[in-house]
Amino acid sequence: MEDYRTKCIELLESRGVTVDDIADCARFLQADYHVDLKKEELLESVMSVLSKREVQHAILTGIALDVAAEQGTLDKDLCSILRRDEGLYGVDEVLAYGICNLYGSIALTNFGFIDKKKYGIIAKLNDEGKDSGVVNTFIDDIVGAIAASAASRFAHRWVK
Amino acid sequence: MEDYRTKCIELLESRGVTVDDIADCARFLQADYHVDLKKEELLESVMSVLSKREVQHAILTGIALDVAAEQGTLDKDLCSILRRDEGLYGVDEVLAYGICNLYGSIALTNFGFIDKKKYGIIAKLNDEGKDSGVVNTFIDDIVGAIAASAASRFAHRWVK
Amino acid sequence: MEDYRTKCIELLESRGVTVDDIADCARFLQADYHVDLKKEELLESVMSVLSKREVQHAILTGIALDVAAEQGTLDKDLCSILRRDEGLYGVDEVLAYGICNLYGSIALTNFGFIDKKKYGIIAKLNDEGKDSGVVNTFIDDIVGAIAASAASRFAHRWVK
Amino acid sequence: MEDYRTKCIELLESRGVTVDDIADCARFLQADYHVDLKKEELLESVMSVLSKREVQHAILTGIALDVAAEQGTLDKDLCSILRRDEGLYGVDEVLAYGICNLYGSIALTNFGFIDKKKYGIIAKLNDEGKDSGVVNTFIDDIVGAIAASAASRFAHRWVK
Repeated sequence: MEDYRTKCIELLESRGVTVDDIADCARFLQADYHVDLKKEELLESVMSVLSKREVQHAILTGIALDVAAEQGTLDKDLCSILRRDEGLYGVDEVLAYGICNLYGSIALTNFGFIDKKKYGIIAKLNDEGKDSGVVNTFIDDIVGAIAASAASRFAHRWVK
Repeated sequence: MEDYRTKCIELLESRGVTVDDIADCARFLQADYHVDLKKEELLESVMSVLSKREVQHAILTGIALDVAAEQGTLDKDLCSILRRDEGLYGVDEVLAYGICNLYGSIALTNFGFIDKKKYGIIAKLNDEGKDSGVVNTFIDDIVGAIAASAASRFAHRWVK
Repeated sequence: MEDYRTKCIELLESRGVTVDDIADCARFLQADYHVDLKKEELLESVMSVLSKREVQHAILTGIALDVAAEQGTLDKDLCSILRRDEGLYGVDEVLAYGICNLYGSIALTNFGFIDKKKYGIIAKLNDEGKDSGVVNTFIDDIVGAIAASAASRFAHRWVK
Repeated sequence: MEDYRTKCIELLESRGVTVDDIADCARFLQADYHVDLKKEELLESVMSVLSKREVQHAILTGIALDVAAEQGTLDKDLCSILRRDEGLYGVDEVLAYGICNLYGSIALTNFGFIDKKKYGIIAKLNDEGKDSGVVNTFIDDIVGAIAASAASRFAHRWVK
């Protein structure tokens, strides 16, 4: 699934997110356990997460929904919910769990934490999403899920 | 959440699905345990499932994706995946699990069974989705998830 | 399921946890949204979560595992893992997600946050579990899951 | 995690389950797609599933609960629930989903199907569990989850 990975990285970049940003979030999640960890060390895990087919499909679908909500090509009520990033709308998190589940229970816990803490690029996406015109309802959760999964993968490999 | 429920029922009908069809799938799932059960007895459970906000959001989002794939307003690769109902694309099931999870582990098992067996309206949606032009990639799983959840809710109440 | 609820509350108390402690954790999770919220207002939600059969089964099973690990009646390797509360052992979180899933995606995010933050009784259980002899591997996650679910239920009802 | 894998295989064998039995269930799940598939071709996938730490922990925990219920060393109500394999007890499925989730949405659907169909060793475990004295409440779901995951892994690799 190398080809789709390249496409997904380009899609993320078109929305202002680099793999480096994601590696930085993953590093943040591991910082309690490994003080001196550098984000470069998490990059391999991020790239590995991005090569899973189910992750790629979640990225394609989530970003497509954000873009369509910006363009107004979806059902009106749904557009309005996505534009407001309504607090009780949870399909974005459901997609994120679809990623985290592949990496086990630690990934899910990591996600819950970074989703509330809104570190780094996730905070930036969240703020941007409050501007009129920009919809980042799905992408912030997807980025959080990839970072949470990469951190969990790193933790499991560390111990092996 | 009464208003959104009416909207969701209308949306489902616009794609050829009635609450009666869903109640019939739920009855099928309970048939081993209650031979003489009539679909009317499952209807109350279906209506209750449809009044949950998370279920309504999943319906809105899933049907919007099917429609957008028909109209070709999404990313080209994603449109192509959704139109073919590609076997390894799993975001439709992820959305379905987001519904079933609310009703516990029996709902998930029910879903897996009816998703493979393709009973009633689910079989019809699946066949239709093979016609050029019609995309039923999300709706068949969402209908299966509502039926699986309604059957699980019924089973839990029966014993109480 | 009133009878089992009473039994579960007694079981939790036998391990040092009151419904009041759980309501306080739920309040902590809602504090950002409702500054003046009192834990008493969350108590009804905690009691409602505790009346679900799937929640009761998770409590019975999780506490039974903690107790059996203390008594040494399980497989030796498993006892050793549970006594150390090994970081990469995730079955305790899996049981916790079985509770949270019933309350939707917000409950899961809440759980991830409080599991990392270790507020109130959860911190206490965690510390106690480091004493020789006491095993709190499952109960801290179960308490976190009940609190996260009660907070999510409260949030959904607030808006209705 | 090679060492724990050997232990898990021995544990499964002590309860009457061989890796061959599991590979046969995985083959059954793929039979619609690959008519001539032999169970030997699924064996590598079964072995790979068994080397994941989260899978090993689920096996250790589930079998320990079955054994403890047979020995009567758990809480009386829980023992009674596990001995009857009570239909609405769902913690066994929750543990199974903890395995399937690691292999994506197809694994979950596979599990729901084989859990209802009760093919091969799963049927045998289920029947045995009805004998007085034998508790197979967790192991049948765990075996189903490993088979469902191995089949899903096989399907994903086939296409790559």
